[in-house]
Amino acid sequence: MSAAKKPTLAVVGATGAVGTVMLGILSERADVWGEIRLIASPRSAGRKLTVRGEQVEVIALSEEAFEGVDIAMFDVPDEVSAQWAPIAAAKGAVAVDNSGAFRMDPDVPLVVPEVNAHAARVRPRGIISNPNCTTLSMIVALGALHAEFGLSELIVSSYQAVSGSGKEGIDTLRDQVAKVAGTDLGSQPGDVRRAVGDLGPYPAPIAFNVVPFAGSLKEDGWSSEELKVRNESRKILGLPDLRVTATCVRVPVITTHSLTVHARFENEVTVAGAHEILSTAPGVVLCDNPAEGEFPTPADVVGTDPTWVGRVRRSLDDPKALELFVCGDNLRKGAALNTAQIAEVVAAELAAA
Amino acid sequence: MSAAKKPTLAVVGATGAVGTVMLGILSERADVWGEIRLIASPRSAGRKLTVRGEQVEVIALSEEAFEGVDIAMFDVPDEVSAQWAPIAAAKGAVAVDNSGAFRMDPDVPLVVPEVNAHAARVRPRGIISNPNCTTLSMIVALGALHAEFGLSELIVSSYQAVSGSGKEGIDTLRDQVAKVAGTDLGSQPGDVRRAVGDLGPYPAPIAFNVVPFAGSLKEDGWSSEELKVRNESRKILGLPDLRVTATCVRVPVITTHSLTVHARFENEVTVAGAHEILSTAPGVVLCDNPAEGEFPTPADVVGTDPTWVGRVRRSLDDPKALELFVCGDNLRKGAALNTAQIAEVVAAELAAA
Repeated sequence: MSAAKKPTLAVVGATGAVGTVMLGILSERADVWGEIRLIASPRSAGRKLTVRGEQVEVIALSEEAFEGVDIAMFDVPDEVSAQWAPIAAAKGAVAVDNSGAFRMDPDVPLVVPEVNAHAARVRPRGIISNPNCTTLSMIVALGALHAEFGLSELIVSSYQAVSGSGKEGIDTLRDQVAKVAGTDLGSQPGDVRRAVGDLGPYPAPIAFNVVPFAGSLKEDGWSSEELKVRNESRKILGLPDLRVTATCVRVPVITTHSLTVHARFENEVTVAGAHEILSTAPGVVLCDNPAEGEFPTPADVVGTDPTWVGRVRRSLDDPKALELFVCGDNLRKGAALNTAQIAEVVAAELAAA
Repeated sequence: MSAAKKPTLAVVGATGAVGTVMLGILSERADVWGEIRLIASPRSAGRKLTVRGEQVEVIALSEEAFEGVDIAMFDVPDEVSAQWAPIAAAKGAVAVDNSGAFRMDPDVPLVVPEVNAHAARVRPRGIISNPNCTTLSMIVALGALHAEFGLSELIVSSYQAVSGSGKEGIDTLRDQVAKVAGTDLGSQPGDVRRAVGDLGPYPAPIAFNVVPFAGSLKEDGWSSEELKVRNESRKILGLPDLRVTATCVRVPVITTHSLTVHARFENEVTVAGAHEILSTAPGVVLCDNPAEGEFPTPADVVGTDPTWVGRVRRSLDDPKALELFVCGDNLRKGAALNTAQIAEVVAAELAAA
């Protein structure tokens, strides 16, 4: 590709929850793209969506759809990515995939531009993976602290929003909240469970409740979501032996994942030192003045790009450990934004080639 | 007091949120009491409340109200307990106090009957304290595991219900949920904050949100709630040097606190060993079969007495550490039930004397 021609971008899954956010993000960011081609399942073909202020007709997913595409983003289920990302790569596109299909493939880099942009250059399969939204909601802040203090252990608990389960999750919470609003439910066992009826994608009610299970069941009682946080954090940070323990819990929040983080480092830490790093790190906002009621919450963070960090404390028993409360919009940095950032890194590389 | 005469119990704060639950609990449990005297602020005097199926008139708090009382429970604000529990004790009653006024007083035992019933016997001030609801929501399960494995460290994150803030907390969540129900709010920053209006007792919206701050601000960025979990766990377990780190977060749940717990022990642990202990420990229910969707959630635990434990996993990096998800009804075991249990321990001691 010549440096003069702007690259062609394909958005696969343009009509989905993340795809919709993606079109908004592509319309807001510096415009590095030539054609933006929108691709979705055949049943969505022909719909017109707005991107960069223009109506673009959605075309059906097919091998031919990738003709002339330089970079193809995939915001589709794992099995669709597993089938189609290699096809896009075979047609000469760099595939940037937001599914779980390739994340732990040793021949596929797992990239967060603020942390390991360099990894995007080495892509033997022509595929780059975007991390899971829970990992992405904290990793930019942890990468910045790691660069200074040397991370040795993470113990995290999540407070995950329902939009992490897609539109079905959002609809389920809204429906259930409508059923319990204005009632006296919530003081007897089973009250809420009986009232909400349909559980949607969740194994328990999500209105007036928290659900300590996300994803599918893996070995030894761990959930897939908990193992993703562990494995992906290790891969992104380049720390294959990092000690990582996660407990993932769904909460009745529409969008923005939160996490409590106990982070242990090789070296002693101070709150002042952590504040200095977090207040200057790209992609991070420090919001930590509880005396003035300042700490991040999903209601304030939703719709924004950065990773927000507050409640920074040094462990009372361990001068090498910090406690943090971290929030990130799971549809933006947790999905669409990071995918867009990776695509921009590749576009810059192609332009310089 | 002779063994033949049943002791007189006073319930101070009978009309409050915890007091109301207390009257229900006293009506359900084995009846060890002679007179049950209901005491409240002067403005509630004259109201009639039902306990043990009988209407009892509330009398105003005064020195004379404690005449002939053997045991006086206090479910009132800290400053009311600080003033009146010593007066009750001076009148010859044993005061069982559910406020924070005396919990860390070295001359006041802090008692959870399943864990340290013996401590109730040594009460130089005539006062016994009931722990904070967050500590109580996990400590029975941890006490049982400690007895077997020897606890060395706790790292906990809470998912605390609004009834921990009393009636004002419940009303605030209900009002806010009514305002956001049926709306499309929750995808733009500040949407929910603008919609809910009054924040009630919280520093941020609690509907469609989580709030990473509970209690008041103490030194080095810690909240009072986080320090209570630390200090009270150490005192109850008799482990003054136990490493304890807590991050306390409020969630939109009416009643029942949940906690994720990373518990490290002196000895190696197994999930099977932990299951055996938790399935037989008094006051604990093991609910841990995620393959069948079995784990505790607040919606199922609310209104029950035990501490429920699920999601038991051994840390992948540390054979001495367990991960748990624990739920306890913060108004029952977290407040009224434990106070009633302490009073019963004292009643049995008095009867045997």
